[in-house]
Amino acid sequence: MVVGNNKSAVFLKEPSKYPVAGEHIGVELKQLNTDLHDGQILLRNLYISLDPYLRNRMKDVVSYVPSYKTGEPLDSHGIAEVVESKNSKWPVGSLVVGPTIRWEERSVVGANAELEIIPAESLDPRIPLSAHIGVLGMPGYTAYGSLLEIGKPKAGETIFISAASGAVGQLVGQIAKLKGLRVIGSAGSDDKVEYLLKELKFDAAFNYKRGSILENLRAAAPEGIDIYYENVGGETLEAVLEVIKAHGRIIACGMISEYNNGKDTYNVKNLVNIVLKRLKMEGFLVYEFGEVVKKRFEREVSEWLKNGEIVYREDIAQGLDNAPDAFVGLFHGRNFGKGVVKIADL
Amino acid sequence: MVVGNNKSAVFLKEPSKYPVAGEHIGVELKQLNTDLHDGQILLRNLYISLDPYLRNRMKDVVSYVPSYKTGEPLDSHGIAEVVESKNSKWPVGSLVVGPTIRWEERSVVGANAELEIIPAESLDPRIPLSAHIGVLGMPGYTAYGSLLEIGKPKAGETIFISAASGAVGQLVGQIAKLKGLRVIGSAGSDDKVEYLLKELKFDAAFNYKRGSILENLRAAAPEGIDIYYENVGGETLEAVLEVIKAHGRIIACGMISEYNNGKDTYNVKNLVNIVLKRLKMEGFLVYEFGEVVKKRFEREVSEWLKNGEIVYREDIAQGLDNAPDAFVGLFHGRNFGKGVVKIADL
Repeated sequence: MVVGNNKSAVFLKEPSKYPVAGEHIGVELKQLNTDLHDGQILLRNLYISLDPYLRNRMKDVVSYVPSYKTGEPLDSHGIAEVVESKNSKWPVGSLVVGPTIRWEERSVVGANAELEIIPAESLDPRIPLSAHIGVLGMPGYTAYGSLLEIGKPKAGETIFISAASGAVGQLVGQIAKLKGLRVIGSAGSDDKVEYLLKELKFDAAFNYKRGSILENLRAAAPEGIDIYYENVGGETLEAVLEVIKAHGRIIACGMISEYNNGKDTYNVKNLVNIVLKRLKMEGFLVYEFGEVVKKRFEREVSEWLKNGEIVYREDIAQGLDNAPDAFVGLFHGRNFGKGVVKIADL
Repeated sequence: MVVGNNKSAVFLKEPSKYPVAGEHIGVELKQLNTDLHDGQILLRNLYISLDPYLRNRMKDVVSYVPSYKTGEPLDSHGIAEVVESKNSKWPVGSLVVGPTIRWEERSVVGANAELEIIPAESLDPRIPLSAHIGVLGMPGYTAYGSLLEIGKPKAGETIFISAASGAVGQLVGQIAKLKGLRVIGSAGSDDKVEYLLKELKFDAAFNYKRGSILENLRAAAPEGIDIYYENVGGETLEAVLEVIKAHGRIIACGMISEYNNGKDTYNVKNLVNIVLKRLKMEGFLVYEFGEVVKKRFEREVSEWLKNGEIVYREDIAQGLDNAPDAFVGLFHGRNFGKGVVKIADL
């Protein structure tokens, strides 16, 4: 059966700088053929994840994920319910999570879709379903795996986290506290800074839009920092290269300030400190930390969440109609916590 | 006894950009009291090493070595003969090597000087004495230790080396060849490029002053590179970030292009590739690779040298009078091979 009212958030064209809702992503009603072949299932999509790296899928860059195609729905990590099934792997009623849930109300996908059923023991009433694309999903695993495997934090060290109230940053900071580090964060509003200090118990935090980033960082870390958790790049990276100690580690998770500026990038003036201070700066692919780390992540972070040892804030936009605005807002710092769009109630 | 004719190359003032002989370093006759206290020795200095990192000692930057003082002789790695001794560690006639040999004809130093006697078995007639501050000294150890410990090269991989005919680069390339890598180098003259191809047997090489660095690099490495041995920074680093493969390693040995430009640094436009390609970029302190690596270096490189499996080119300026010019020339690429000043014959 062909239905003609399948609402979708569609990629319209490549932005040269910041994406604009309506111009680069728009909402359309598309047609969907819901007649299933063998192996196929029909999904009712519930949540999609808004992540900064998706911006890079809007341009033709070398990356590990394919670029978006004009006229097609975007996709990202998401959660869906199986409502019809011709595939025994995914029976009707299963809740599934995967990295390429399309930004549309319903989807038909085949047997090679990357979907995992959320196991019953993970459907804890104390944990919201959306956590499976947040603190218990890719952003959470990113934070946990990279902090521990690349940063190799030691009790007593000082870590600085940019975009610290974001999807990844808020968890990095709390894990670092649990591991005995002194934790400093930056964020883009006074509300977020207050959240870092009051709710997440950071040792110091500042609003990067108020005053000089370098002076704020020097005041927060008078003896320098050992680890920098890099989410933003540009001027913040430059300030870090001044205050980081010899043999410091930079965990290069993202550089959101560089995603929207075309060729007009910030001139980081002191890269030579990588040589002079003998720094290590490392990017990573979260899927390569391996199964042992993944299992440890799932066990430890679930426990911390249930015990209330960590908290996790989400910023949930309601409905696909709001998806373009919510996505664009990520790059202007308008989200407060992990960005999510709720497409439908369970 | 005070002698008043001890020729010295002296630090005059901090350059804002490129150092100029006569303005920032000058040659003077200084006085020297050659009466020795207990524990002291009198050195007749023979060779001093010209290394790019010394440029950073002419400014007030955070580094692991102290800045030069106005009016005082510079110092660097060097080789000297002990001509008088009140210290049983260093008897008269010993040949010593150390990291802080002063740029003067004779020096009096005390018991805490960092000097090692060159062992008799290393004084092989097939190896020039100056090799102990070159291929068998700090630059050689830098090349060997960092390539193997940080780069972790594997046979079949491709490495690109900037400043490839320099003190460190020429050895990195030859070791990489011995380990089964495809080796590409850049240098600043056609003569140097010919040397890389003909004498050092590099697989490809280009003159970075002819045409676009990026296009040269793409032509030399159509399938990309796995390891970049970074000696120059700036535009070359930017080109590398385009052609390097996912999970590439950047061994950050130096960034000579950044040492002389004050705050007017090159805008590397694509640092975001560190995130997108999951790269590792690492600086290092050669003294931290440990004794095991050091011994392995001394044994392996000595053997290679004696067997003719590697060659090593030095550019030797004659006499302290020529030291300022030779040092300044390093930053204009006027040396061809490892920069050395010979102060006196043995």
